Amino acid sequence: MSDNRLITLLTDFGVQDNYAGVMKGVIARINPRLNIVDITHEIPPHNLDAANFCLMTSYPYFPSGAVHVAVVDPGVGSERRAVAIELATGFLVGPDNGIFTGILNREQIIKAVELTNSEYWLSQEPSTTFHGRDIFAPAAAYLATGTLFSKLGSEIDPATLIHFVMPACTETDAGITGYIQYIDRFGNLITTIPATYVKDRQWSITAGGKRIPGYKTYGDTRPGNILAIEGSHGFIEIAMNSGNARSVLKIGYRSHVRLVIKQKI
Amino acid sequence: MSDNRLITLLTDFGVQDNYAGVMKGVIARINPRLNIVDITHEIPPHNLDAANFCLMTSYPYFPSGAVHVAVVDPGVGSERRAVAIELATGFLVGPDNGIFTGILNREQIIKAVELTNSEYWLSQEPSTTFHGRDIFAPAAAYLATGTLFSKLGSEIDPATLIHFVMPACTETDAGITGYIQYIDRFGNLITTIPATYVKDRQWSITAGGKRIPGYKTYGDTRPGNILAIEGSHGFIEIAMNSGNARSVLKIGYRSHVRLVIKQKI
Amino acid sequence: MSDNRLITLLTDFGVQDNYAGVMKGVIARINPRLNIVDITHEIPPHNLDAANFCLMTSYPYFPSGAVHVAVVDPGVGSERRAVAIELATGFLVGPDNGIFTGILNREQIIKAVELTNSEYWLSQEPSTTFHGRDIFAPAAAYLATGTLFSKLGSEIDPATLIHFVMPACTETDAGITGYIQYIDRFGNLITTIPATYVKDRQWSITAGGKRIPGYKTYGDTRPGNILAIEGSHGFIEIAMNSGNARSVLKIGYRSHVRLVIKQKI
Repeated sequence: MSDNRLITLLTDFGVQDNYAGVMKGVIARINPRLNIVDITHEIPPHNLDAANFCLMTSYPYFPSGAVHVAVVDPGVGSERRAVAIELATGFLVGPDNGIFTGILNREQIIKAVELTNSEYWLSQEPSTTFHGRDIFAPAAAYLATGTLFSKLGSEIDPATLIHFVMPACTETDAGITGYIQYIDRFGNLITTIPATYVKDRQWSITAGGKRIPGYKTYGDTRPGNILAIEGSHGFIEIAMNSGNARSVLKIGYRSHVRLVIKQKI
Repeated sequence: MSDNRLITLLTDFGVQDNYAGVMKGVIARINPRLNIVDITHEIPPHNLDAANFCLMTSYPYFPSGAVHVAVVDPGVGSERRAVAIELATGFLVGPDNGIFTGILNREQIIKAVELTNSEYWLSQEPSTTFHGRDIFAPAAAYLATGTLFSKLGSEIDPATLIHFVMPACTETDAGITGYIQYIDRFGNLITTIPATYVKDRQWSITAGGKRIPGYKTYGDTRPGNILAIEGSHGFIEIAMNSGNARSVLKIGYRSHVRLVIKQKI
Repeated sequence: MSDNRLITLLTDFGVQDNYAGVMKGVIARINPRLNIVDITHEIPPHNLDAANFCLMTSYPYFPSGAVHVAVVDPGVGSERRAVAIELATGFLVGPDNGIFTGILNREQIIKAVELTNSEYWLSQEPSTTFHGRDIFAPAAAYLATGTLFSKLGSEIDPATLIHFVMPACTETDAGITGYIQYIDRFGNLITTIPATYVKDRQWSITAGGKRIPGYKTYGDTRPGNILAIEGSHGFIEIAMNSGNARSVLKIGYRSHVRLVIKQKI
């Protein structure tokens, strides 16, 4: 099995239908010995922000050489390109719609191809709605089995890959401002502000018209209180001890937040 | 690992409880080297239509020889038979309640057995409520490990296997009529009308009192519009661009639909 | 692969985010050949009762030597210990917060360690919020790969492991009383009363002010009726034929129930 690379799957297909299962069937027909790990299939439908964040924060934890398939694809069937990207430490396979922005900004890109070689598709006539099954899963299975990257299609200039403009983190006199880039199942609101800003300092976050104190752990405040912490992803996040911060603050993706640093401890 | 067959699981047990996990434990105790793929565990409780559709549209994508376990089993503990079915290209294991209808209508049946041989059960006294753990998972694990099919129980006539009468697709003067056979997570309504009817034609679908235009891709209409397309499953389906067709049309399983073909393009 | 132990995961991380996927990445980097089985990631947030029940009723079905990781961890970042426990037939890895109570009450404990050896952490500086990734997943991967148990940290007295007082089952003149210890996806209410009490008897359960008759199978009563049965977990459970008992009875975790045995059949 050591010849075979790991494949990860991230989609908005959900776990209710058989879409993800069918992708695994397609992969297993090409190579039944491949290991497949689900990152998640519950990205909110068409939410590229959430997909981008989950990919970016998963990528570093996987083995070198893993093939990461991402299918959140509102433009399926339109002119958007299906691509594979070779990085220094792994491979990406999915639609060229910005979904890989976070990884591309952080990792070294070696090469990119458009998945135009129909020999590596499921069949010569892919559907217009399910490229996960018809194009991306087979491409990933062949890549993970050792097919030469450049065989998958025609090479494209990595500079032409679509990036979306990430909600930025900027410093002004009023403080450091950023945005909500992800909301997790617990209702934790993950900002774009790196946690490195608050090391060994006293700080708070302004969001949704409220000032939220920064703490080290949930336990530093009482259940029911909203707090900000250095999140496990490396960004400042807003949470509620034993509760759901999102439902109380009523803010969403791309809402503005401001960091106020009081002083060195 | 090449001696071992893939096992797939489809149930209505959900991902909240440990029912599916326990089935995997039972399989791993019999053979820890078997690969297990979840098709879905989120079939709506007791919905045999949904289970049948997901099985039928998954089966062709899996490797030959795979063992497909399906447990949507409202009659567990009653007189319904527990069965295994050998097809030309794979195996089915589950209750004899019609869940395999779609596959049985399409595939060549070699042999069928009732799972009466308690040597291949988890224990001599199976529970009355969880045959997935006590009977089906062990049967699948033994089959996938190479146990002779006929050892699992007494042979039964495949003609006696329960089929349910599938919502049909029929042609009349008023057009081609069918039904909703599946509703996916996105609220897409999948009809029983094969997409082959609409190749290279102009067409529309009548459903829920509305006439819905047929298009090639989501992108051919604006976000918020309801459209019909040739779905990835090979059937005509009703969708909403960037929305949920089910919640707008308010139609459900087995609702009638009518295809109207306007002309050749 | 026979040298490698199975790893199971149980968390309240949900399947929406990438938390469980990242744990699998961490495990795969340490040993890509390990088999990982999800028991569930949908434990209700911070619900230790549910976690404890799912672990206790899964454990016996897995192969000997399996490493069971459980992360429902409201006290993460506080003083609670991170532990690994060696049992006669497997290993447990998780927070020392009572989550393993049910298993510890039933199984033979060989040894326990606090996971203090940072050589077996993901990095020298674990986050304060995601020990599943930073401490528990690596510990499990090393254990499953054959790392000596005692290397993971400093030995602790198993008697100091936190147990929570399980809702008990007691006999009085009024009958046998117990509690709801788990509620599954179907709305079935699983009590703490062992099913062995009702073998070959006529019986009923009092719960939520209602008397609920005991039956052998769902089929013994009509759809829509509430009944009590000998559940597949070995406890008496309250269910509704083709419906959701929880939403009708409006009782929850730790609600009292009383068993009334009428007579021998």
